[in-house]
Amino acid sequence: MTVRELCLRGREAIPALQSASGKQRNDALLAMAKLLMRDAELILEANKKDLSGAAENGVPAQMIDRLTLTESRLGAIASALEEVAALPDPLGLGEEWVRPNGLSIRRVTVPIGLIAMIYEARPNVTADAAALAVKSGNCVVLRGGKEAFFTNCAMVNSLREAMVSVGLPADCISMPEDPSRETATQLMQLRGVVDLLIPRGGKSLIRSVVDNASVPVIETGAGNCHVYVDASADVNMALSVVDNAKRQRPSVCNAAEGLVVHREIADTFLPLLRERLVDVEFRGCEETCKILPDCIPATEEDFYTEYNDLILHIKVVGGVEEAISFINAHNTGHSEAIMTESITNANRFTAGIDAAAVYVNASTRFTDGGEFGFGAEIGISTQKMHARGPMGLSALTTVKYVAWGNGQIRG
Amino acid sequence: MTVRELCLRGREAIPALQSASGKQRNDALLAMAKLLMRDAELILEANKKDLSGAAENGVPAQMIDRLTLTESRLGAIASALEEVAALPDPLGLGEEWVRPNGLSIRRVTVPIGLIAMIYEARPNVTADAAALAVKSGNCVVLRGGKEAFFTNCAMVNSLREAMVSVGLPADCISMPEDPSRETATQLMQLRGVVDLLIPRGGKSLIRSVVDNASVPVIETGAGNCHVYVDASADVNMALSVVDNAKRQRPSVCNAAEGLVVHREIADTFLPLLRERLVDVEFRGCEETCKILPDCIPATEEDFYTEYNDLILHIKVVGGVEEAISFINAHNTGHSEAIMTESITNANRFTAGIDAAAVYVNASTRFTDGGEFGFGAEIGISTQKMHARGPMGLSALTTVKYVAWGNGQIRG
Repeated sequence: MTVRELCLRGREAIPALQSASGKQRNDALLAMAKLLMRDAELILEANKKDLSGAAENGVPAQMIDRLTLTESRLGAIASALEEVAALPDPLGLGEEWVRPNGLSIRRVTVPIGLIAMIYEARPNVTADAAALAVKSGNCVVLRGGKEAFFTNCAMVNSLREAMVSVGLPADCISMPEDPSRETATQLMQLRGVVDLLIPRGGKSLIRSVVDNASVPVIETGAGNCHVYVDASADVNMALSVVDNAKRQRPSVCNAAEGLVVHREIADTFLPLLRERLVDVEFRGCEETCKILPDCIPATEEDFYTEYNDLILHIKVVGGVEEAISFINAHNTGHSEAIMTESITNANRFTAGIDAAAVYVNASTRFTDGGEFGFGAEIGISTQKMHARGPMGLSALTTVKYVAWGNGQIRG
Repeated sequence: MTVRELCLRGREAIPALQSASGKQRNDALLAMAKLLMRDAELILEANKKDLSGAAENGVPAQMIDRLTLTESRLGAIASALEEVAALPDPLGLGEEWVRPNGLSIRRVTVPIGLIAMIYEARPNVTADAAALAVKSGNCVVLRGGKEAFFTNCAMVNSLREAMVSVGLPADCISMPEDPSRETATQLMQLRGVVDLLIPRGGKSLIRSVVDNASVPVIETGAGNCHVYVDASADVNMALSVVDNAKRQRPSVCNAAEGLVVHREIADTFLPLLRERLVDVEFRGCEETCKILPDCIPATEEDFYTEYNDLILHIKVVGGVEEAISFINAHNTGHSEAIMTESITNANRFTAGIDAAAVYVNASTRFTDGGEFGFGAEIGISTQKMHARGPMGLSALTTVKYVAWGNGQIRG
């Protein structure tokens, strides 16, 4: 079956899913959780097959870790589905008003239609994305990384059976038979068939989607995030936040890649930070290198780089306005933080920075659906259209205006 | 100045406009209205120049009418700006919540940045778009049709002077010096410079933008709208609504292009409609042609066509489900209406139809920012992402999450 045929089958399942009740959609999610656990043996076997393939192909250790399923990880995946089932229904929400001519207009949230996900070798995304899509009334085509192909096949089989078990079409959830790059490219170009494409993964995946897609896309995840340490910052708080933003989980998009520090505090702050972040490589501007003679000089390229690693680029500035200009010129619109005791500077920073999330005296690591209180998330949007920041269920809905009249015509 | 340079100047004006108060933005709109009237003579002279050029180039009468400015039309344009000034401020709206760790998160509406408009020879759009953009804190590049070039130059001069008169940069509003097709193509490809492109005009303009744009786009205006007359319809109400939807202003996007009629009522309804819509050309399916022997047979192509003219395509169906399938297969997702006395069928229709606006017993002509009570509109979105249906000021905003903490780090 071609990717186009697969997506057309997904579209055929739309009316049945869209007319399902909220309870039926939740029951589908609970059945998914149950069948993933029932089929645990098959799924873990398939995962072993993927893991041995990955080992043969010299896949990096970090990716192997993400790819690996265990009984307990599968249990966590199933629990996450139950949590999504327990979230409020994102559909049918709205407001209603009556126009002077008696026309009653209701703005109501409705599903988007057919959503395609392109992502890397993370089996948990397969289940999460299916659950968020079905909960929001959307059919979904899951195109995961080829390293996880057998795992995804096994999981999608269980997920499809779960749909059927509650009286919904299996084709609400599907995946291409062919895990090659070509299938991803085809998905990007099915204008009028795929209503929304969400790429989730590294910079090159996102870039390829943005360059090649003719279908609507929500860009996610690129994070060149900064912490700006103002002259008035509480030094210990700043040390703790920079440490957390850089080191707590360096591989993720909301980790800090850059430090911007006020000239008046740089002499004090940078040596203390150097002492504390012993395992982090610093790449600094000229002034940073004067204060820290062992620091590697940063190139202009460095300031644009999301390392996803224990490396930090550092820039010394003369004040909050210069910090804002520097960050806006280099960032990816994800998450930015200011450490300051000055309310004026905090307000200037939060107003001036162009990013999905702006923090005052807190770590950039909180940009995340769970941490924001949205429940599960399908990704973190770094664009401004449709959704920005952590995307929960509401980002997977659109609106429809339903107007009831009694013969109104326009004069 | 190249289009790119023009847009970069627009970007430089963003911080000043984004830090302006709501009052200052409203003052800018009131100054625009005042200066357009002060400069009426210059603008009307420029318009005469455009009109004589258009006459020489054999521009169709309908377009000449849209292009023509008079003292009173200019007065209406200025009043519309004052009405936009009086609308509530769309910026800074939001909700705030506190997470268990004490982090206070506020979701707040903010401007998008630099918006580009590509539109046809309608001088009122120049003023409307500038007003909606500035009111929502966005800088704007206005690329109107070349037929209105001199008019737009004169108007944009006044609008820019209005910005300066309230202490804001002239470059918040600008237009390319070159009205060729090339400038439109360049605007479509300024990724990272143009935050949002809104094309407003005919099918070929929208198609060209969707095919060529690498910047985010909101598609507007394509309207292959239908009225479905159910078996249970009130015949007189249905006649009146079809008449209104087709004939009240056939050139606009929310006019009906198609009639879908239940087999049980077709024998009665179609001859009555034929009698009433004497100046409308009917193009019908086989069953329609049996009932109305003089009817022109419709091709499959007809059923996809937005005529914007006194032509109606007609399809006879066996019930509401067939009507929904037929409409969803051919429509453009704009506006669809059902005429029925059956609540069940009304509910099936409003749930099953995939369109921005769905009407029960009312004309499709109401899909419009003013008619919906949104005040002015920048266009009618026929896409599902970001905005759908009439787009008022809120469609020109995005959100930012601003989080205040006191040293929160992620565990």
